[in-house]
Amino acid sequence: MAERPVVVPRLIERKRDGGALTAAEWRALVDGYVADRIPDYQMAALAMAVVFRGLSPDELVALTAAMRESGEQFHLADLGRPRVDKHSIGGVGDKTSLLLAPMLACLGVAVPMISGRGLGHTGGTLDKLEAIPGFDVRLSLAAARRQLERLGAVLVGQTPELVPADRKLYALRDVTGTVESIPLIAASIMSKKLAESLTGLVLDIKTGSGAFITDPAQSLVLAETMIRLGEASGCRTIALTTAMDRPLGVACGNAVEVEEAIAGLAGSGPADLMAVTIALGVEMVVAAGLTTDRADARRRVEGVIADGSARERLAQMIDAQGGDPRVVDDPRRLPGAPIVEPVAADRSGTVVEVKPRVIGHAIVVLGGGRSRADQAVDPAVGFRIPVKPGDRIDAGTPIGFIHARHPDQLPAARAALREAVVIGDVATPLPLIGHRVTVAGIEALT
Amino acid sequence: MAERPVVVPRLIERKRDGGALTAAEWRALVDGYVADRIPDYQMAALAMAVVFRGLSPDELVALTAAMRESGEQFHLADLGRPRVDKHSIGGVGDKTSLLLAPMLACLGVAVPMISGRGLGHTGGTLDKLEAIPGFDVRLSLAAARRQLERLGAVLVGQTPELVPADRKLYALRDVTGTVESIPLIAASIMSKKLAESLTGLVLDIKTGSGAFITDPAQSLVLAETMIRLGEASGCRTIALTTAMDRPLGVACGNAVEVEEAIAGLAGSGPADLMAVTIALGVEMVVAAGLTTDRADARRRVEGVIADGSARERLAQMIDAQGGDPRVVDDPRRLPGAPIVEPVAADRSGTVVEVKPRVIGHAIVVLGGGRSRADQAVDPAVGFRIPVKPGDRIDAGTPIGFIHARHPDQLPAARAALREAVVIGDVATPLPLIGHRVTVAGIEALT
Repeated sequence: MAERPVVVPRLIERKRDGGALTAAEWRALVDGYVADRIPDYQMAALAMAVVFRGLSPDELVALTAAMRESGEQFHLADLGRPRVDKHSIGGVGDKTSLLLAPMLACLGVAVPMISGRGLGHTGGTLDKLEAIPGFDVRLSLAAARRQLERLGAVLVGQTPELVPADRKLYALRDVTGTVESIPLIAASIMSKKLAESLTGLVLDIKTGSGAFITDPAQSLVLAETMIRLGEASGCRTIALTTAMDRPLGVACGNAVEVEEAIAGLAGSGPADLMAVTIALGVEMVVAAGLTTDRADARRRVEGVIADGSARERLAQMIDAQGGDPRVVDDPRRLPGAPIVEPVAADRSGTVVEVKPRVIGHAIVVLGGGRSRADQAVDPAVGFRIPVKPGDRIDAGTPIGFIHARHPDQLPAARAALREAVVIGDVATPLPLIGHRVTVAGIEALT
Repeated sequence: MAERPVVVPRLIERKRDGGALTAAEWRALVDGYVADRIPDYQMAALAMAVVFRGLSPDELVALTAAMRESGEQFHLADLGRPRVDKHSIGGVGDKTSLLLAPMLACLGVAVPMISGRGLGHTGGTLDKLEAIPGFDVRLSLAAARRQLERLGAVLVGQTPELVPADRKLYALRDVTGTVESIPLIAASIMSKKLAESLTGLVLDIKTGSGAFITDPAQSLVLAETMIRLGEASGCRTIALTTAMDRPLGVACGNAVEVEEAIAGLAGSGPADLMAVTIALGVEMVVAAGLTTDRADARRRVEGVIADGSARERLAQMIDAQGGDPRVVDDPRRLPGAPIVEPVAADRSGTVVEVKPRVIGHAIVVLGGGRSRADQAVDPAVGFRIPVKPGDRIDAGTPIGFIHARHPDQLPAARAALREAVVIGDVATPLPLIGHRVTVAGIEALT
């Protein structure tokens, strides 16, 4: 390029002083950072300036585009089908991706689902998939494309070539106190999702104590920011806010969640899991442009569960990705914990809370999650927690089941379960599905 | 230390969110940074958070103390004399240090003057001293102490062992847009000055278009911040605000400024240079505790010029530091520019402005300053500008003289001089000496 060289300190100063950088400047910053021409310390100072000053709508579009185009992209425009993904901001017990990918594939939508791993108290779809013996999440983009053509859905991890700017910037933000910035969060997520060349995207914005962003107002700001970014790239983007003041479903872990997802595809999942899955599926059908009538969309989504086709498609996907498809019929083929121990309520009353963060961190302590990105995960451990806020329970009935590897893990797991499940008098849980946010605005669904 | 390890991202987040770090945390950050245990990118993010959030008074004292104690210190408490330094925030044509060090030494005050180099449009005392053939500014602290005992003043550069935290942090701030922070500027300056174990310090806070901080209100905030820091360490600290909307004196460069300083010690310097030098000298006498009567202090300061003792002391200091002391009697022994060219006024009128930044940057272009810290400096080049805002001049009379190395430097230097010296109708220069700031408050001197 014959452009003027970018003097990074001047750009940092402009952002620090409340100014805006141009699209060319954001691209030069992102490209220079990925190429190691711009050092971490300048990017860290700039990220902190963005935490305080934010980004203008134009800057956010420019940064997201520069990040999206910083490496390879998943080119699927010639697939001849709508391409729709679902992205969740992270939570505990959230296995909806495992249901939605085969469900939407059965409806003629291509679902190029690039997922992440668990970190901290939140689980990750890749860890759950790897609980299936043999399942390989490390497909090349070419292999993923072939599977998309054949089966309509693929569940893979991010390749090193895809959006390298986000990988490098996120690692830096993680150690420089610059994670908590709505524009940087939005750019991080949307640069990856838009690199999937989607025609539609549904965002599951978790709210409540177990969510990444605990302030509901901020959750809506994030949703609107991401929707603007998606629509600016011609991707129809819809968000639902869903409750993460308690885990979603009963199972929390890896193999236990796969088992619950399979049950869900057979129509027998926990009510809250089914409700959220179907609600998200309806929005995916709408985002795909198959229909604008949500009652019609709901019939279609429920239909692929009722007729068993989604469950069959999941088995085909597992088989295609090297996993043992027999787990779909026989979940005992999933890794099982040597110890399964119930924990009884020590009093009667109303379940007031089931704290997702306490459960999530307890899964990490059991070995089923990670506190550092390089840790291995034990697929068999976790919890099943059949109680929900508002349930009446009697002393002595189980508040949950620990799935553990070693007996010496039990005391901490019992203590965590008792801390997480609060029994008292009055429960005020969040509505399971709170708002729908689209480019047209925010709509309360309760 | 058996203390809890410091988790740097948590400290950055606390500062980002408006909290304060403890003295132990600041010390751990500074020590860890100097020891390369804390990476540049975390320090850069923290510095940017400080730009936005500032530091509490306690934090500022703690950071300054940790920086001051990050390396060797100049231990002089047993010298048996008051120890007073003068520090200027930087400007163009400011050669007062060259006069004040020998003047105060003649009055029984020890002046352990550790100075800096020029950068950008501002000159540096070390560069000026090195215009004297043979002059060595790189004395060890032990050698500097011996000279202080014998001659009462020493003019040296910062050793690598003195306040390494500041050297490392300043270099980082310079490239991360985090220079413009009053608490960080104050900590940087005061950590170095307090490492000289001073009993008194006089700050020359330049104000106006050529100053580092151009907003006069911010200059006063910086002065008060540094005074609090000095007094918190038992160092009597006084600031004067002085005009830097035009250069100080006539000579701007290196050898030309040494020549003007020598003339000043002979009582024949430009009026503005003499007025500022004597005003600062008076405050140094007061800060030294020699008298509280400023009229008495002025008589003493003027006395060591009038009787030639300060000039003689400068010759002794030059001799002691390896320089040619004959320059004091014969300034032609200083490096001279091959070309000295007058530039004439192209119209009659009143001098409205003499822009210091334009002159300072033109000196850099001539080779007499530096835009990067590793550049060499040509001691002979510069400008002499005899006109001051408010002067009436006739077309054809000189507005200044260019001291150049090569003829091809002349066109740019002429253009700069004509840009810097604005001739018009009404001049509104700042008062030469604006305010005195002490721990008791701000006093207007005009």
